[in-house]
Amino acid sequence: MKIEHLGIAVKSLQDSDHLFQKLLSKQNYKHESVEREGVTTSFYNVGESKIELLEATNPESPIAKFIEKRGEGIHHIAFGVDNIYDEIARLKALGFIFISEEPKEGADNKLVVFLHPKSTNGVLVELCQENS
Amino acid sequence: MKIEHLGIAVKSLQDSDHLFQKLLSKQNYKHESVEREGVTTSFYNVGESKIELLEATNPESPIAKFIEKRGEGIHHIAFGVDNIYDEIARLKALGFIFISEEPKEGADNKLVVFLHPKSTNGVLVELCQENS
Repeated sequence: MKIEHLGIAVKSLQDSDHLFQKLLSKQNYKHESVEREGVTTSFYNVGESKIELLEATNPESPIAKFIEKRGEGIHHIAFGVDNIYDEIARLKALGFIFISEEPKEGADNKLVVFLHPKSTNGVLVELCQENS
Repeated sequence: MKIEHLGIAVKSLQDSDHLFQKLLSKQNYKHESVEREGVTTSFYNVGESKIELLEATNPESPIAKFIEKRGEGIHHIAFGVDNIYDEIARLKALGFIFISEEPKEGADNKLVVFLHPKSTNGVLVELCQENS
């Protein structure tokens, strides 16, 4: 297991790309929209992990609602796992609660699933696995 | 640069250690108090990064205030750098604002300094360097 990425909710990808390029001293390696999730993303490599900036594509997007409630900031942490189905089964058996029953295709060629923050200390935790 | 650790504010280190040991499927490698910062910490290795759970040691602790305002959750992200003084100079020249002028000794044998979230998209960013 590793920290695959850290998701950060931003109002403007343009403004925040400008900021994070300065902060991290590097360019993003891609922009990608995930229309089903209502987000446009921008990815930066940082060591073995990534920073994923998330901008809402519509007012109903989870990112728009997050910013409305809490302002811009860290939105979720994603742990990269080898087998997402095994990991879901392991965590369910331990009593962890998932937001959806099955993994879905997320950004950056991943299968992703989210745990409910109420079972993880207020932290929105994503599990992700390379979608081969 | 890498993600050195991710700091998570928790109400009870005992409860949250129990939770994160299950979530990460491993034990923490240490507990450490930083009395000047008003925190007791618990560290977990996750790939090249760490998860740092933070419990307040008194009601005036920044962690107590964070939880009072926002509830438990992700508190800060720390980037590991080779030379913290060079990195502070680089970022100041780019207009980033720091909470303190000079690095201090933090947990886990590090020199640490924090950027102000108002200059970093609402994200509390720590820079840290191994304190040799």
